Amino acid sequence: MLSFPPALQKLVRELSKLPSIGEKTATRLAYHLVANDRELAVSLSEALEKAAQEVRLCATCFFLSEGEQCSICRNPSRDNGLICVVEKPVDLVAIERGREYQGAYHVLHGLWAPLRGMGPESMRLKELMARINSAPPREVILATSATVEGDATALYIGRQLAELGITVTRPAQGLPKGGELEFADDVTLSRAFAARSTLSV
Amino acid sequence: MLSFPPALQKLVRELSKLPSIGEKTATRLAYHLVANDRELAVSLSEALEKAAQEVRLCATCFFLSEGEQCSICRNPSRDNGLICVVEKPVDLVAIERGREYQGAYHVLHGLWAPLRGMGPESMRLKELMARINSAPPREVILATSATVEGDATALYIGRQLAELGITVTRPAQGLPKGGELEFADDVTLSRAFAARSTLSV
Repeated sequence: MLSFPPALQKLVRELSKLPSIGEKTATRLAYHLVANDRELAVSLSEALEKAAQEVRLCATCFFLSEGEQCSICRNPSRDNGLICVVEKPVDLVAIERGREYQGAYHVLHGLWAPLRGMGPESMRLKELMARINSAPPREVILATSATVEGDATALYIGRQLAELGITVTRPAQGLPKGGELEFADDVTLSRAFAARSTLSV
Repeated sequence: MLSFPPALQKLVRELSKLPSIGEKTATRLAYHLVANDRELAVSLSEALEKAAQEVRLCATCFFLSEGEQCSICRNPSRDNGLICVVEKPVDLVAIERGREYQGAYHVLHGLWAPLRGMGPESMRLKELMARINSAPPREVILATSATVEGDATALYIGRQLAELGITVTRPAQGLPKGGELEFADDVTLSRAFAARSTLSV
């Protein structure tokens, strides 16, 4: 039976290994690359090779880095007594965008999500514990998302850290800036009420 | 401000040039490639390079090919007096899957879709006309999709071919195999009725 040339079939197979890319999308992308935009095929190939060669995980915090240590861990003015634990690199970038946090980070690259078959070994937890054991911080902020899995992960890690006598905190949960009370969901509202603070007048 | 390493940013930019891949998806894919599946980054890079080098369009029918001419155009047992015109390579593969058609093909790589700013120059029509002029076929089957744009394209090309005195046909439109009458749309139903045939009993 007739089919696409082998080199194209191979490209389709590789593309469909990407998360959220099925075989149909992979076929469409591969066809676009060879039939309409060969230049992009070449530049994308080069970008992939370069990224695979140059980008690695920081040996200390596991953020993305082009050297042994990332720019944050190399920065002597950051406070290493404070470690903020996040799920993924984009979360770290979001926090840095705020320009307020001056401590260190630890990127888990995963969550504790037993329902999806992800246990403690699916995140960089061993590395976090080793780091904390060798240089105990004053405080660890567990900044995983305010989702069921994010909460569960924070609880799971928090218990182990508390045993070591380290102060463990979690970012506040409540109404987002600009969030109208009318449209807030029940959980957000109940958490916002439970964590209410005195208005300073 | 902190951001991803330059090599990763470049990868995100290249990935987001792909059709239907936005910046968010590109960021997610790039992150997956460098943080979780570096092997895929390398193999995908190689597949892209190889496809860009080896896959080209057949000089005769513009199907995807690894040589000057595709396997169909090189096959001496195919009937070159019959040319089936399709929009894209996957359409050709679908027809070949049926194992019945034994004629030649011509891949337009586009449609006549003025509402989307695609005129006759957006498809390989000049090449089709040149091919037909140099070796007039008995019949041209305009097998573009049964959509508004597919119909319009067939009509547009059909008129030019009819002027040359070539028999022009279009695949039948009607109920698909297994299609329940109850759920058929109005256009399909009216076309199926208009093209009804005598039942041989």
